[in-house]
Amino acid sequence: MSFISTGVEYGLHCMLYLTQTHSPVGDASVRDLAELQGVPTEFLAKLFTKLARAGLVVATEGVKGGFRLARPAHRISVHDVVVAIDGDKPLFDCREIRSRCAVFDDQAPPWATRGVCTINAVMQLAEKAMRTELKRHTLDDLAGRIVDKAPADYGDHIVQWFADRASGRQAGKPAGGKRA
Amino acid sequence: MSFISTGVEYGLHCMLYLTQTHSPVGDASVRDLAELQGVPTEFLAKLFTKLARAGLVVATEGVKGGFRLARPAHRISVHDVVVAIDGDKPLFDCREIRSRCAVFDDQAPPWATRGVCTINAVMQLAEKAMRTELKRHTLDDLAGRIVDKAPADYGDHIVQWFADRASGRQAGKPAGGKRA
Repeated sequence: MSFISTGVEYGLHCMLYLTQTHSPVGDASVRDLAELQGVPTEFLAKLFTKLARAGLVVATEGVKGGFRLARPAHRISVHDVVVAIDGDKPLFDCREIRSRCAVFDDQAPPWATRGVCTINAVMQLAEKAMRTELKRHTLDDLAGRIVDKAPADYGDHIVQWFADRASGRQAGKPAGGKRA
Repeated sequence: MSFISTGVEYGLHCMLYLTQTHSPVGDASVRDLAELQGVPTEFLAKLFTKLARAGLVVATEGVKGGFRLARPAHRISVHDVVVAIDGDKPLFDCREIRSRCAVFDDQAPPWATRGVCTINAVMQLAEKAMRTELKRHTLDDLAGRIVDKAPADYGDHIVQWFADRASGRQAGKPAGGKRA
């Protein structure tokens, strides 16, 4: 498994549909988001539980209920989503082998274990650089970049797809159905 | 397992003993390096095979044979060691779910899959920032930082420990023996 998981990829793609920049879909259900993108519904439901716990999305009730962003898309960074889904795991897990050096004879002197290990310190700087970059990009930035390369009617197609799904449900039709 | 492995930690610690900055040990055997640091010899041997393949260390023959750095310590970066041991694995493994959007009806249009996915592009920038930081630090930098915080006779203790091991072997004594 890569350091930044597939769950983050699924979560980010879904959340982009919830930005107004991308398409004014409004609240969307996990099932619709999953089917729109061909990803497993149950897995996506678990991701949305994590996103809700992290305060990035909120569940709404009612016929048109689903999920919406908990705050404006320009205030949700890629890093927020990474941490919500993957946790705040470190890039490197220092085993403190510096304390085991045989010349210390099982009694590492204070200087040898003071502060962060020199090697771990570099890994922490690298991790900080990575996280700083992830914090620089918001959902709104990403949605804007997608809209820039998509045809003008892409957002309309997305909105229509969700509307078709909703009307299908109201009419008692089976869920699903792709646009021709 | 963390993104940067324990193998990298072991490899870096060992290589620091092979820098002249740290201690003028000369060539060192994997067994000695492993026992000096209390890490498994067989695992370390595999790491040195990788480091040798990457051209970072060279094996030397003879009674005093072992491994030495293949180039000066200021020309070996932390990133070189990370790549030699962990490979060049990506931080994020994009599944290209952008191409699966249901509105495309199983035929993603060229604009949707052109270039790198917007999300993956951010992950790649984050990975680049991380790698840039790892490239900024050399073995010589790390060794210098350790020497700065160690007592003046630390390097001598290390050299003496290796010398004791070598003379123990020549006298037919069992390998090992810690300094009092």
